[in-house]
Amino acid sequence: MKQKELESVSKVKIIPLGGLEQIGMNITLIEYEDSIVVVDCGLAFPDDEMLGVDLVIPDITYLKENADKVKGYVITHGHEDHIGAIPYVLKEVNAPIYGTKLTLGIIDSKLKEQEMVKDVKKKMVKYGQTVTLGCMKVEFIKVNHSISDACGLAIYTPAGIIVHTGDFKIDYTPVFGDPTDLARLGELGKKGVLALMSDSTNALRQGFTMSERTVGRTFDHVFAENPNSRIIIATFASNVDRVQQIINSADKYNRKVIVEGRSMVNIINTAGELGYLNIPENTLIDIELMKNYPDEQLVLITTGSQGESMAALSRMAASIHKKVTIKPGDTVIFSSTPIPGNEKAVAKVINELSMKGANVIFQDTHVSGHACQEEIKLIYSLVKPTYAIPVHGEYRHRKANAELAESLGVDKDNIFILSSGDVLSLDAESGCVTDSVPAGTVMVDGLGVGDVGNIVLRDRQNLAENGIIVVAMTFEKYTNQLLSGPDIVSRGFVYVREAENLLEEAHQLVTEAVVDCVEKNISDWGRIKMIVRDTLSDYLWKKIKRSPMILPIIMEVE
Amino acid sequence: MKQKELESVSKVKIIPLGGLEQIGMNITLIEYEDSIVVVDCGLAFPDDEMLGVDLVIPDITYLKENADKVKGYVITHGHEDHIGAIPYVLKEVNAPIYGTKLTLGIIDSKLKEQEMVKDVKKKMVKYGQTVTLGCMKVEFIKVNHSISDACGLAIYTPAGIIVHTGDFKIDYTPVFGDPTDLARLGELGKKGVLALMSDSTNALRQGFTMSERTVGRTFDHVFAENPNSRIIIATFASNVDRVQQIINSADKYNRKVIVEGRSMVNIINTAGELGYLNIPENTLIDIELMKNYPDEQLVLITTGSQGESMAALSRMAASIHKKVTIKPGDTVIFSSTPIPGNEKAVAKVINELSMKGANVIFQDTHVSGHACQEEIKLIYSLVKPTYAIPVHGEYRHRKANAELAESLGVDKDNIFILSSGDVLSLDAESGCVTDSVPAGTVMVDGLGVGDVGNIVLRDRQNLAENGIIVVAMTFEKYTNQLLSGPDIVSRGFVYVREAENLLEEAHQLVTEAVVDCVEKNISDWGRIKMIVRDTLSDYLWKKIKRSPMILPIIMEVE
Repeated sequence: MKQKELESVSKVKIIPLGGLEQIGMNITLIEYEDSIVVVDCGLAFPDDEMLGVDLVIPDITYLKENADKVKGYVITHGHEDHIGAIPYVLKEVNAPIYGTKLTLGIIDSKLKEQEMVKDVKKKMVKYGQTVTLGCMKVEFIKVNHSISDACGLAIYTPAGIIVHTGDFKIDYTPVFGDPTDLARLGELGKKGVLALMSDSTNALRQGFTMSERTVGRTFDHVFAENPNSRIIIATFASNVDRVQQIINSADKYNRKVIVEGRSMVNIINTAGELGYLNIPENTLIDIELMKNYPDEQLVLITTGSQGESMAALSRMAASIHKKVTIKPGDTVIFSSTPIPGNEKAVAKVINELSMKGANVIFQDTHVSGHACQEEIKLIYSLVKPTYAIPVHGEYRHRKANAELAESLGVDKDNIFILSSGDVLSLDAESGCVTDSVPAGTVMVDGLGVGDVGNIVLRDRQNLAENGIIVVAMTFEKYTNQLLSGPDIVSRGFVYVREAENLLEEAHQLVTEAVVDCVEKNISDWGRIKMIVRDTLSDYLWKKIKRSPMILPIIMEVE
Repeated sequence: MKQKELESVSKVKIIPLGGLEQIGMNITLIEYEDSIVVVDCGLAFPDDEMLGVDLVIPDITYLKENADKVKGYVITHGHEDHIGAIPYVLKEVNAPIYGTKLTLGIIDSKLKEQEMVKDVKKKMVKYGQTVTLGCMKVEFIKVNHSISDACGLAIYTPAGIIVHTGDFKIDYTPVFGDPTDLARLGELGKKGVLALMSDSTNALRQGFTMSERTVGRTFDHVFAENPNSRIIIATFASNVDRVQQIINSADKYNRKVIVEGRSMVNIINTAGELGYLNIPENTLIDIELMKNYPDEQLVLITTGSQGESMAALSRMAASIHKKVTIKPGDTVIFSSTPIPGNEKAVAKVINELSMKGANVIFQDTHVSGHACQEEIKLIYSLVKPTYAIPVHGEYRHRKANAELAESLGVDKDNIFILSSGDVLSLDAESGCVTDSVPAGTVMVDGLGVGDVGNIVLRDRQNLAENGIIVVAMTFEKYTNQLLSGPDIVSRGFVYVREAENLLEEAHQLVTEAVVDCVEKNISDWGRIKMIVRDTLSDYLWKKIKRSPMILPIIMEVE
């Protein structure tokens, strides 16, 4: 028995709390005895059925229960799905955050908004640097991604080395800095790697993701071919290299650059201050000065590449932007691909821009930040892990990654397609899921964290589809006499003026039902409510095949 | 003056009432003096913001006002976006329907559901046939599409010939029947065509749409490569040729075919009865007999290729299908592309199927039913119209079609990117939009047609995002004494047990506000309601940054 216990404590535990059921909300615990290292701490955006929910953060019950073990948060890069939950999670489980310069810069502006800067320790690391966290060490490895300063990790545990790719691609000609550090990954592979956790986002796509630099060439072509138009380019605010390339093209073709959209302004300020953007003097101008320049000397960089209704480009397209009016001859570039679910919103903006006479361009103006199949294969070939744990993707993506791992010689039994909350225990001899911990989503609506759950969502869904009918009545408390009502008020049900007869008839039926209750001397308010609900819903279903929420309210007067 | 009037009556009017702002709800009137021919009569599916709406039909105010002119409905093919509004529109404006055999067969089953078969005259036509409708004649021309028996139209008006492509592609090797009748289109072009209305759906896509037959080859490969699995194929119910090819592959590889999903069963029955499906004897078996056959002898054809939550495949994926349980080794083919907006729903089904161990295939298993750029160019080159009117597409698609027309020599001023309701008046000399008629969408929710409008939708949107708080109070009518309440009831707002303090504090504030009104002797119920609303919404916004709908209800007791 003691032998077995000893064995079990000598395994490293990998515990993903998110990032597996969908793309988003990445957070994984690496636990060895009394030490926990948290890899990333991201949020997710709500599904369509999460009505009214602003964002989604992970359930960190297990982390709270083991707060004393947490040695630190290591953050791979500055995207929301890797850093967005930090303000929420660190309020509960505080520990130092480790990351590269730009990553910490972006986290810092997030903490500022929440007035949490003083409460959180941040420790800046450089590529190649190793930090000690309890009984583990973590090395930060250069990788390419759609944001600068992205890292992969080598996590040295007593049970072996775990390599985590972070979000990555392999770009031999990056716009800023070096390519993914393939040599270091190869060295680690030679030493012997216990497990590889690798990005699965594009594991269904064949081939190799194109270099970010190819987008710069497209920009140059578009600038050359449209010498007389104003050029407006929408892209992801956090893609600093993309912004750099727009600035490069602008500089080459003698255009001033205007930045529009709050998140774009923020990130360019942060990246500029930290030295991640090289902006030639006098290139950037304030939007207020736009009127002083002819169209052919202007480029606008803006948010809204996903058709987000309140973003700058969408407001321009809908003619509700205060400072920019789209006009015939404008050239608008979508430097992005619609994220699944945003296709219709993006199409709407393209239609609106086209109707105003703008020339909309979206071909060859974007590349992915994630590795395709050949890149994933390259990493497996270098790292040669004993265990493969595909991460960052829906099930289908991770399954495709798993198939690649198997094709490259990883033993089928050593490949784990995990679920959030799984506790995977590994050492060189064996690996298996030994336990599970609470995991799931906590919904944030306004300032409320976790006060919207399934019951609330079910009600919102019902209200959304069918509206509500309130039936109010006042009874004398002791005599059960009906003093007032039933009054019927509806919202989101029918246009009342068009449905006077329907509502009149409904009112009459409900009144008869209530009077009947009174005559029968029913004094159980619950029963009267049920009778009202049944009477009304039967009638409405038969009459117009709809099921609004019915809310009977009984007031008592003594 | 008289001269001018004469001129004006001698022009033909083209009046689209739908089909231009989105893909869906196709209906266009061709009017010449006292004759109107209606081309197609389709529905659209609701946008995301049309909460709870089942379907959308066109506003036919103008058609009703001119009902006596309507000589008939000519229907190009049997898809919902071309026939779905027939039961609604013909209740208002009845006239004979002209179409090919399969098209009328599908319309017939629709009319049966609505018990309208007897009320509607249907006249079957064949390719090449011409029917006389008032002062116009309409010729039906063979085109290929993703449903059999699709037509283009040549509409002979006193002002000239209008060619309407219908929904089309050019398939030199169709599965059933002949290729698009290019020769006839060429003849018409030689005669001289006034206007060409052509399908714009794929006008942004380069090249040529692949032949339907290529999908059959993929099916053969998949069947050959998976000799031991059960094969499940999801596709659009109306794609009879696709179903035929599945049956062909099944026959070749000695598998029995099971059809599952209500709309799939319906269409196969209709198409089979009318001779559009060639089903070898003993191939089709009932789902109840599935258990008598081993997996390798079975193919299921099912609905759900768009991830629709209640369709057969989605129910199988979610383990709530009563008769089919997905198991490891099953091969599932999506013979479809997600329609924009359905990407996430389709991905969800793929993930669920993969988790159950199914092998999901979606490469080369679908081709579009619409013409790409080279096909559109071919039609312009044959028809050589004076005027080009791109139809069937969003603005961006129709603009791309317009650019093709211009590149092929149509005068820029003779190309019209119309809006629904525009009245385009044409003759050989000149064409312009001379007027506009009411056009727009009528929403159908349950049995209610048009009783859901913008106010109802705005309420549903608000309810969906924030929920509702009802504040009920009873007052003595003459003394303004507060007899009961205020009581607070919420739905879809917060999980009440998690927010007791919040609701308690809210209740206290509202009570104070109401008592204050009573003390000030305010007897205007409207003012009290306003005060309640303001008090509560201020408090909730400050406290948790949310804005639920607030519905104060005042009951009076005499």
